[in-house]
Amino acid sequence: MAFDVESLLRSDPRSIARAITQIENDRNGTAELLKTIFPHTGRALIVGVTGAPGSGKSTLVDRLAKFYWNEQKKSVGIVAVDPTSPFSGGAILGDRIRMQNVSLEEGVFIRSMATRGYLGGLARATHDAVSVLDAAKKDIIIVETVGVGQDEIDVVKLAHINLVLLVPGMGDDIQAIKAGIMEIADIFVVNKADREGVDRIEAQLQAMLSISHRPDGWTPPIVRAIATMNEGTAEVAGAIEKYVDFARASHLFEQKSKGNARERLLQLLSEQLVARVVEEQLDARDFERCVAHIASREKDPYSVVEEIIANFCKKQASKSLGR
Amino acid sequence: MAFDVESLLRSDPRSIARAITQIENDRNGTAELLKTIFPHTGRALIVGVTGAPGSGKSTLVDRLAKFYWNEQKKSVGIVAVDPTSPFSGGAILGDRIRMQNVSLEEGVFIRSMATRGYLGGLARATHDAVSVLDAAKKDIIIVETVGVGQDEIDVVKLAHINLVLLVPGMGDDIQAIKAGIMEIADIFVVNKADREGVDRIEAQLQAMLSISHRPDGWTPPIVRAIATMNEGTAEVAGAIEKYVDFARASHLFEQKSKGNARERLLQLLSEQLVARVVEEQLDARDFERCVAHIASREKDPYSVVEEIIANFCKKQASKSLGR
Repeated sequence: MAFDVESLLRSDPRSIARAITQIENDRNGTAELLKTIFPHTGRALIVGVTGAPGSGKSTLVDRLAKFYWNEQKKSVGIVAVDPTSPFSGGAILGDRIRMQNVSLEEGVFIRSMATRGYLGGLARATHDAVSVLDAAKKDIIIVETVGVGQDEIDVVKLAHINLVLLVPGMGDDIQAIKAGIMEIADIFVVNKADREGVDRIEAQLQAMLSISHRPDGWTPPIVRAIATMNEGTAEVAGAIEKYVDFARASHLFEQKSKGNARERLLQLLSEQLVARVVEEQLDARDFERCVAHIASREKDPYSVVEEIIANFCKKQASKSLGR
Repeated sequence: MAFDVESLLRSDPRSIARAITQIENDRNGTAELLKTIFPHTGRALIVGVTGAPGSGKSTLVDRLAKFYWNEQKKSVGIVAVDPTSPFSGGAILGDRIRMQNVSLEEGVFIRSMATRGYLGGLARATHDAVSVLDAAKKDIIIVETVGVGQDEIDVVKLAHINLVLLVPGMGDDIQAIKAGIMEIADIFVVNKADREGVDRIEAQLQAMLSISHRPDGWTPPIVRAIATMNEGTAEVAGAIEKYVDFARASHLFEQKSKGNARERLLQLLSEQLVARVVEEQLDARDFERCVAHIASREKDPYSVVEEIIANFCKKQASKSLGR
């Protein structure tokens, strides 16, 4: 493999960019790359930032990144996870523009991810991109996501700490989003705190927090911010630091690290198994024939899958006999 | 298997409930059940409804269900997909209450889904629950989801038609959410249309639609509604009917049906492969040992996965030799 790992480990931005591109495009090359850099990972603090579209998440993340670099000389890597459009497959234009903007800053590297191949491909690629930034000696890696779906839950398992952004005006609906987004939060940030309804959303959050109890004993703080005006950035960073101290003292990060490894193993196992079966066992025509049988209800998907797996195993067996 | 398929095919609510519970809990029983009912599926119209928490999605879905039953004598099944909390694993309380409320109505069956097992388990379980309702002769099946993540994209592939709900006040942010949520919409519903900003959000949507072109030639209509007051329900149902006529005429549903089959095959293949490898190849202790090696950086996940797959294949081969 021609990839220059040494320059990646020296945090060369072009090498980082090329490594992440490789992760997005090429499954086989990725395995080699990740094997090489994996021993150099495990150093960075991984921060998840989740918030609905329009919550000002990207602005807050930019502010935080600049704060860490300017005030604390900590280097930052940002992975912005875009939901891929099923039609265009493209990343959000806004993020692309922002990416160029921020990556001009020294010490901050930002990358949008929009890969989708096999199932779970985006989560896997995000994990791998975080590993690349980690090996490239970024001190803090921020993973940005929207929504409250599967992706976000996978990010929870990846990050050491999770920030959830809310904005005033969602106050009526805290009950509705509670189960999904609320329980992943180690810190709540009420952004756009100059808007009407800020006291109300904070009161609702506090009411909710007063009746919930986390198994780890942590009570998520609520931090107000106006990211566009750079207000509250230091307070958010301070809240992150407090949580990190708490988590280190109570050995939470070891648990999270195991959870992360478990999730990653299952993801990768799933991806690689499907890829091997589809590539080795079925050619594209076979696969489309299976699809057509299911679509026409001639065969049910459960029976088709049983046949595919049985054939795969048989083939592996005869391969092994031939040796 | 003791399951009474006949009463399910007669649309008995208790049988439907038991079938979906089985899907959520038991992988092996599910396969048998789905094989049996699969030939009876393919009749229902599947409608996806996506909207952020607080957009009034649940209320609109309830209104639509009642409209279809009361006005058109069409029976409705509702699958409300909850993002599972990583801490509690529970469904949203609000949905549970609502579920009881609506399932009292004749002709409407509603079920919340919150399963999560292996990766993709929720999407697979949702597909299967839709199949159950389809076999139970529901005319229309509505799948409700929040957010813009992976789950929603999987729902797109499942549904014949997708509604996206917006509310006034998100107007500033249409650009931000465009790539994720906008392109899955066959119909836009601006709910809470008595709120300030309704003209503005509609103008922004129209501006966006005027520059986008879908490969299928459909231009998504924008329908205003106030679901809490049952205003706009008939208009939404009318828009759905128009799209269905259009899609039938241009053979879009055949394409969607194939896309659905493809997605379902990959999902199921992935789930069953991982389950077989983990159950047959690794006992819980082996698996946790692999996890610990990755967490401590002794081994990288790519190498671990390669070993697991190689061992699985070897075992299959020796099994086959022993026969």
